[in-house]
Amino acid sequence: MSTPVKNTPILVQKYGGTSVATVDQIRLVAKRVAAQRRQGKAVVVVVSAMGKTTDELVALSRELSSQPARREMDMLLHAGEIISASLLAIALEEEGVSAVSLTGSQAGMITDETHMQARIEQVEGERILHHLTRGRVVVITGFQGVSRRNEITTLGRGGSDTSAVAFAVGIGARQCEILTDVDGVYTADPRIVENPLKLSWCSYDEMLEMASLGAKVLHSRSVEIARKFGIELIVSSSAQEAPGTLVCSSEKGRKEFGEMEEVLIRGVAHNADVAKVALLGVPDEPGIAGRVFDVLGAHSVNILLIVQAESHEGHNDISFLVSSEMLSQIQGDLDALSGKIGARKVIGDQGVGTVSVVGEGVQRESGIAGRMFKALAEEGINIDLISTSNLMISCVVAEEFLEKAVQAVHREFLE
Amino acid sequence: MSTPVKNTPILVQKYGGTSVATVDQIRLVAKRVAAQRRQGKAVVVVVSAMGKTTDELVALSRELSSQPARREMDMLLHAGEIISASLLAIALEEEGVSAVSLTGSQAGMITDETHMQARIEQVEGERILHHLTRGRVVVITGFQGVSRRNEITTLGRGGSDTSAVAFAVGIGARQCEILTDVDGVYTADPRIVENPLKLSWCSYDEMLEMASLGAKVLHSRSVEIARKFGIELIVSSSAQEAPGTLVCSSEKGRKEFGEMEEVLIRGVAHNADVAKVALLGVPDEPGIAGRVFDVLGAHSVNILLIVQAESHEGHNDISFLVSSEMLSQIQGDLDALSGKIGARKVIGDQGVGTVSVVGEGVQRESGIAGRMFKALAEEGINIDLISTSNLMISCVVAEEFLEKAVQAVHREFLE
Repeated sequence: MSTPVKNTPILVQKYGGTSVATVDQIRLVAKRVAAQRRQGKAVVVVVSAMGKTTDELVALSRELSSQPARREMDMLLHAGEIISASLLAIALEEEGVSAVSLTGSQAGMITDETHMQARIEQVEGERILHHLTRGRVVVITGFQGVSRRNEITTLGRGGSDTSAVAFAVGIGARQCEILTDVDGVYTADPRIVENPLKLSWCSYDEMLEMASLGAKVLHSRSVEIARKFGIELIVSSSAQEAPGTLVCSSEKGRKEFGEMEEVLIRGVAHNADVAKVALLGVPDEPGIAGRVFDVLGAHSVNILLIVQAESHEGHNDISFLVSSEMLSQIQGDLDALSGKIGARKVIGDQGVGTVSVVGEGVQRESGIAGRMFKALAEEGINIDLISTSNLMISCVVAEEFLEKAVQAVHREFLE
Repeated sequence: MSTPVKNTPILVQKYGGTSVATVDQIRLVAKRVAAQRRQGKAVVVVVSAMGKTTDELVALSRELSSQPARREMDMLLHAGEIISASLLAIALEEEGVSAVSLTGSQAGMITDETHMQARIEQVEGERILHHLTRGRVVVITGFQGVSRRNEITTLGRGGSDTSAVAFAVGIGARQCEILTDVDGVYTADPRIVENPLKLSWCSYDEMLEMASLGAKVLHSRSVEIARKFGIELIVSSSAQEAPGTLVCSSEKGRKEFGEMEEVLIRGVAHNADVAKVALLGVPDEPGIAGRVFDVLGAHSVNILLIVQAESHEGHNDISFLVSSEMLSQIQGDLDALSGKIGARKVIGDQGVGTVSVVGEGVQRESGIAGRMFKALAEEGINIDLISTSNLMISCVVAEEFLEKAVQAVHREFLE
């Protein structure tokens, strides 16, 4: 992919809501962006809404309706980024840098019409490039787009990361910087593990796995788009200049940072916000599992993990995890289904969590699983379910032991 | 102009910021609109931003810059109406009424690109009509539009009135209701005159004259558009159902409300926010006055009143009024010009105000001017300048006597 702004490197930066929460912070971001611009770079900045703006707008809507129309929520929420983007453009002009703010619609973010969870169809980068070639910093509202019928859409909470990467693709940039309130991707959540390590890099796949297993650094869709189009992500702090974490292909990372065959644990992820569903004594017949997950699909339930053990006297136990809030929504359907397929019992359990190690090749390296299970056992923590892939080993444990489990596993592999 | 929503009367209502300042007020507006909808009307609602939102956004921008770019101010401020419009649509749905919010851009408000003071070029009403014919209440953001190059624009403070009337024109409605925190147009400002009378009607021209002389009920541009396209305006309270004031053509008003030749004083207007400029001893030569006002035209100064007295020994005194804040901006130019055209002296005086009686035919009815001057004289108030037209008699007096002057004139004609 070539750079269409002739001879000028393009920098795409995304600033999250905590980085633009106040006028003073917006001014600091403007100074930082202005410095980059003065170095001759063409700069595109994607912003989230200021601080808690989105939450506040949601709260207003909830005062009026318990189930506001999704279309209207998109209309409402997209105001938040309009405010932060225009204020940042004003702050940039004050720094002596020519700037222009664009709504998602003006910037060419074309989506489908799935309100509050729109999928990006295309980024038409012409208008951004038009301004860049005239030396202007382009400030774009994150999180939002427009459908082909000119309906305002949003990409779902946290969607500004996704916006930023999509704009990078749309204008032919190679990298996208995600500037936030942490200075990189860490080996564990610092609220639980005392001194986690900052990663110099991790692969797209590792990042996606960590995100799906509970890490909250990057919006998964942003990483998927970055992987698909080969955009390198840099996660770093909006408050400091310290180097952050590079998220890139395994090839690039290993080449640049010198790992070859060695399997590395990239981090320990955890998720307390899950519930376990166990369908016990399901007849071991073809098509049964499919029917179970059809029911869940109809609710757009995101399944976090599925485990089916060996069948026993013609019956299976099928267990899976869903987000805690989903459990109550699907409980009724599961009970009905359980009768239909002749399961002996259905159990829903909110009191569980997952602890996972993530790293390319962890499953292949048999020693890792054993060390993880042993570390948990030494703390007296019982493992309820186990699931593995080439990228992760994940254990379901009782929620009350989750923090202890994360600490034990982190100690085993990363301290 | 015909009604394009077949067999259904169209109601266009505009609610100001004080009428949608809180979630509770938005709910009340929704109930009121829903009741109209249930009577079978096709309803379009134009809203301003909630309460002080616009002021708060302006304050944020001022923290960042003393002179924020006008384009960015339009981007920033247009978020305010997006919030109120979407919340009202949510509240309407909660009342069981199908509703959809549209931005000015989506609703087809096409303007030129004079940011913060855009002129309407066209209203493309198709999208509004599309929703109306499907039974939806259409809630539109007032105050804002979009240029043909897809730049966000605003119509200037108070522009929501103008938006509402323009949308009424664009969809072929006959009337536009302006719902606000007062229940009609009064014969004087109730903060100054104890019991002013509510007008049952006044003509477009009278309303425009009152507005230009200081009354703050309606945005003048909205009245001009209404006059041009024959849209009847109804000014009434958003909190009560009491009949308001009809603003219409003289013919319609006189026919409906039974006045014939009789000259009526429609109200007493006043304006404290003016400054007087007097160019004394200007040579009485052709072209001089033109040159003076060319200078002011270059500053986009709105001249409120011009008086040139009889020439005296080949010299004239030219006096005019500008808004107080304009005086300092033009002072330098006037001093320079004064030298060039050989004026003896230039005086700028902030300490004046205007008191005016408004009504069609007031100038023709000689008794009225005499009564007005006498009423002022009896209070010991000196008249500095006098200007009259068929619609008004306006006197410039010392600002310290302005309230007393308004009370005296109101007593003379309207009590």
